[in-house]
This record gives sequence, structure tokens and C-alpha cells, in this order.
Amino acid sequence: MTNNYYAVIFTSTLSKHTEGYNEMAHKMELLAEQQNGFLGISSARENIGITISYWENEQAIINWKANLDHQLAQKFGKLKWYSSYKVEVALIKRSYNFNNKNLP
Amino acid sequence: MTNNYYAVIFTSTLSKHTEGYNEMAHKMELLAEQQNGFLGISSARENIGITISYWENEQAIINWKANLDHQLAQKFGKLKWYSSYKVEVALIKRSYNFNNKNLP
Repeated sequence: MTNNYYAVIFTSTLSKHTEGYNEMAHKMELLAEQQNGFLGISSARENIGITISYWENEQAIINWKANLDHQLAQKFGKLKWYSSYKVEVALIKRSYNFNNKNLP
Repeated sequence: MTNNYYAVIFTSTLSKHTEGYNEMAHKMELLAEQQNGFLGISSARENIGITISYWENEQAIINWKANLDHQLAQKFGKLKWYSSYKVEVALIKRSYNFNNKNLP
């Protein structure tokens, strides 16, 4: 399948100062869902955290980055929660899905 | 920073039949690292698993998908381990990093 949507890949390592982090992460996910051009979000955290948000186009990503509440969260993240992170903006060129209907 | 490398985003949900899965996942990671054009890999699993492998170009991704040992792992994955998965091939257009040297 050929596609033309975008993803922001956010890979992060938390510091030891995680007070308030889960609450803010949840709040930001709900806020992202309300933005124009938002398509979806997936995340998992083990040793590192990976969050992938999907967007219709690059302008939607720029708008989300500039959102004032999101900027405040980014500021807290830099000051306190993250010891490091990486942001990658990617164009999805193709994708395919698999579903196994025979397995529980 | 402007970039021109590729990522394969593999998002998966495991079935209840995970015997042998962790061992194969580890083996495939070691095998991927030996391929031409391999740049790195990040993964985390919580409710879902997200694995992102990074590659120099699309040909390296095609070669890795066609690798015989990898094909065998893919077959087991479809038959047994995964209840569903999604594969997305993405061009990384730009990226940036943050490191907080003040936090442990």
C-alpha cells in the first residue's frame, strides 16, 4: 500500500524525576487527538519510551509543536522528566498490515 | 538537522503463544545488525510492541526483508506469535536530539 502521511517518532529516556510525568503524557495525548490533521498515536515504554504520532501533513506537525500547552509540556520535559530524547519527522512511504484471525 | 535515512516501524500485538518469541526477536536483532546499510534499532513493548530499525536506503530494507533466516522468522511470526502487526517504511526528513546534562 502506498501512503502519504507523516509520523513523528519520539524516542526518550526518563530521568529520575518523573513526578507528574504520566499525568502530563496522558493530557498531551488527549490534546494531540484534538488537533487538525491528527491521525493516531502509538506508544510503549520499557527501557526507553517510543511514541509515534501520525499526521496528515507537515503543517499539522508544525502546528502541534507550536501549540501553547504542548510547549509548556515540552519545557517541563526538558527541565525535569527527560534525560534525553530524539525527535524524527518521517514521511511514510508505504505500509502493510497483518491480522491473524486464527489466533486468540 | 536534515537527514536522508530510512526507518521501518514495526508495531505488533503478541498472541498468547509466545514460546520462543523472545529468543527469536533477540536473534533477529543480532542478524539485522550484520546487514549492509543497517544504522540502528530501538524497541519497547508494553501493551503493544514498537520496534524501529534504521537503514541507509530502501535497498537495504528490501534486502533485509528477503533475508532467508529473517523470512523464516516472519513465517513463525505469522503462524504463531503475532495476533496482528503493521509495517511502515518511512523516510526520515529531519531529526533533533536533546540531552540534559544536569539530570541523572
